[in-house]
Parts: sequence; structure tokens; C-alpha cells
Amino acid sequence: MPDVNELSSTPRTQLGRHRERARSDRAALFDVLDAALICHLGFVAADGTPVVLPTGFGVAGDTLYLHGSVAARPLVVGPSQTVCVTVTLLDGIVLARSTFHHSMNYRSAVVFGVPRLLTDPAEKLRALEAVTEHLAPGQWAATRTPTRRELAATSVLALSLLEASVKVRSGPPIDEPSDVADGGWAGVLPVTSAYGEPVTAPDVPAGVPVPSRIRERSWGVARARAAEPSGG
Amino acid sequence: MPDVNELSSTPRTQLGRHRERARSDRAALFDVLDAALICHLGFVAADGTPVVLPTGFGVAGDTLYLHGSVAARPLVVGPSQTVCVTVTLLDGIVLARSTFHHSMNYRSAVVFGVPRLLTDPAEKLRALEAVTEHLAPGQWAATRTPTRRELAATSVLALSLLEASVKVRSGPPIDEPSDVADGGWAGVLPVTSAYGEPVTAPDVPAGVPVPSRIRERSWGVARARAAEPSGG
Repeated sequence: MPDVNELSSTPRTQLGRHRERARSDRAALFDVLDAALICHLGFVAADGTPVVLPTGFGVAGDTLYLHGSVAARPLVVGPSQTVCVTVTLLDGIVLARSTFHHSMNYRSAVVFGVPRLLTDPAEKLRALEAVTEHLAPGQWAATRTPTRRELAATSVLALSLLEASVKVRSGPPIDEPSDVADGGWAGVLPVTSAYGEPVTAPDVPAGVPVPSRIRERSWGVARARAAEPSGG
Repeated sequence: MPDVNELSSTPRTQLGRHRERARSDRAALFDVLDAALICHLGFVAADGTPVVLPTGFGVAGDTLYLHGSVAARPLVVGPSQTVCVTVTLLDGIVLARSTFHHSMNYRSAVVFGVPRLLTDPAEKLRALEAVTEHLAPGQWAATRTPTRRELAATSVLALSLLEASVKVRSGPPIDEPSDVADGGWAGVLPVTSAYGEPVTAPDVPAGVPVPSRIRERSWGVARARAAEPSGG
């Protein structure tokens, strides 16, 4: 049984470059997953071509749940087929004095594993709750749960989070001393994400208010704060 | 010679689900590429595992240029190896009356092709200019260009944009009539991105101002505007 507080180190999760940017604790992994809304799922199609598609996800314990539309492709769910799930948060553009040292501040997680296609309706419901609550906290309890037919039409993949790596870059550019000596400007342009004002659907009767669970989302503020360079 | 105003339709760029969300014109492709800062590059590692890594990119004509760190992996640059590059812009969270009809508003582009590793220094410089200017307009001319040694240490991949697909979802949730009749709230929570205040590096001499090319970036404003649901 692996130590669940340490991310696994397998050949494919070892970083080829910039090993100093690696994080090996599971807390860092969950921080990245919590802060992101979508992931990119990579799999190998039947003809050997790699395919990368964006999709929603949820987390419960040490399992990542991937939602539906892409899972419907039979190529993903072939038995014993390894997939790669990558989650990336872009925090800033690193503007150096040389083009060579331009970079990005980011947090990214890469997870490898053989996913399991959920078939048990009860497990599928729990997984969909995790996916829905990740994207839109409070919505699972507040909206109509799936019918049997809807549940059958939804594909959910479960992927263990045990084989994962996390990479983080933060702080200012690292320039060559000779470029620093030239005295020009360098720094970081933060990239922030936020929620805008909720837009009520046109078929909602007049006077129905935006629920407070939606009005009060603060993820954007949290991300903006995390995007501030740490100065190190 | 394919019509360069039409995206190619090959089996792997045809959409398995939600074909109504497909866009087939090249203008839509360039809009998505212009609005995004990073892409996700998918390739198949030597052991057959799919690998998805975030990276910067640039566009010149009908060519996508992928920058450096990931290209350094020998597995990417194997001759005749197909890669998949996916660019995703998340515009909003679609909050329906049923969990089943929850969705996301987004614009995404998927490009397939066999990349070419650049070796000619002059072509590499032009490609790096495209990548730098995509991430940070104005920086190529304003900062020190790469030395011969730096250029040799940088890998750049060129990928044709001819085989690509674009998928867009916008507008309010589409609920079941029986759920609409219940009279509850539904709508879209826009997700916006913006630049924060530039953070000057600690090794910049006091009094050096933030260059106007950085202070005046308006990409965030443009994206926020694009993220407004079109109501359709």
C-alpha cells in the first residue's frame, strides 16, 4: 500500500525538465484539482493517434471522476487502456529581460491510470454528484436528480489518483546577471479568473431570484489571490 | 490543395457527439487560438502511454508553433509521430434545472498532425518570435533576442493547422419542458479571465516604470466580453 500522502514516482511521472518545480505531496495535488474547473483527458485512439479533449471532473477520496461526453467514445473505455488527465492553472506571464527566460507561472497536475467505466447506478450517482458539485457547488441538492434513462445515457470514468505528479512555477523571472545589469524592466503579469454576474435563462419566470449559492461563489477571488507571485 | 477557409473533415476531427456545436470555418479556429494563452499537447510515449502537457504556442500563417520544454522530450519528436493539440477556453458554467442538463459554455480547438522539429536557426527565431508575441505582445522587439547557445537549447515544433476542428457551446441551459414548468431558476455563471496589475521583479532598479505594452494589455477585457452568453 503506497503512502497516500506522497505522490507516486514512476518513470512517467518523473519530470524531464525543471525538477525543482515538482511537488510531491498529495495536498498540492488536491489544491490544483480543487482550483480547476476542467481537465484535459488524453487517450490513444484505435488507430494509435493521441486524442486530447477537455471535460469536467470531480474528486472523491483518491478517485477522479470524469464526466460523460468524451467517455462515450468507445476508444477511451477499452479495457486496460491507460489515460492521462492533465489539469492546468495559468497564474501569470513571466516577462524577462531576454526572450529566452520568458516563462509562465502555473500549477499543473498530471494523472496516469487505467480508468474504470462505472456501471453500478448507485456508484454512478455518487460520481455524478462529485462532478456536479465540483463544477457548481450546491446544485446537486438543489436541482432534479437524473432519471434512470438519463443515468443510462451518461458515461462516467473513475481514475485512481495514486499515480500523479504536480508541477508549480511561481515568482519573478530569473534573468542572466548581464541582462539584469542593463537595468530594464522585468516582472510578472498575473492572469486571474473570476465569475461574472449570473445570467438568468430567458425561460425563467420574472421575479425568480438568482440563488445565493450561485451569487456567492468566490472561486474567482480565491484564484486571483493564489495567482499573486510569491516573490520566490 | 484543400480550401484553406474550410477546416478539414477527417474521421478524427469529426465530432462524435453534439455535432451542432461544430464550427467548420478557419476564422473560428484562429479566434480560439488568438484568445488562448496555452494549449495542451498530447502525444504517445514510447511505452504506448498517452501524455498530455501544457505549453505555450504561437501561430504564423497556417502553422502552429509549440515551445520548448515539452518538445525536449524525445518521445514527442519521433519521426512521423502524430500529436494532438487542444486549446480550450471556458466561458461559463451552464446551470440547468436538472443535473443532467448541466453543461459548460466553451470554445475549443483540436488540431492533429505530425509535427516537424525545427533545426534551421532562422526559422527557429521566427517561430520563437511567434510564440513570444502570442504570450506577450511587444516583448520580442523589447527584450534581448536569443544567443546561439540559447537557441540551441530551445526546441520548437511546427504543426500544420490544416487538420483541425472547433467546437463551441454558448447560451442558456436547455432544460426538459417539465423542469422548466416547475418555475425554478436556471442560467449561466460566466467565467472570465483578466490580467492583474503587473508585479515588478525585485531586481529591477527603483523608478523603472512598467512598460506601456504590458500595462495596457486588454486581452482579459476582450475575453470577458466574449464570455457573455449569446442568448442563443
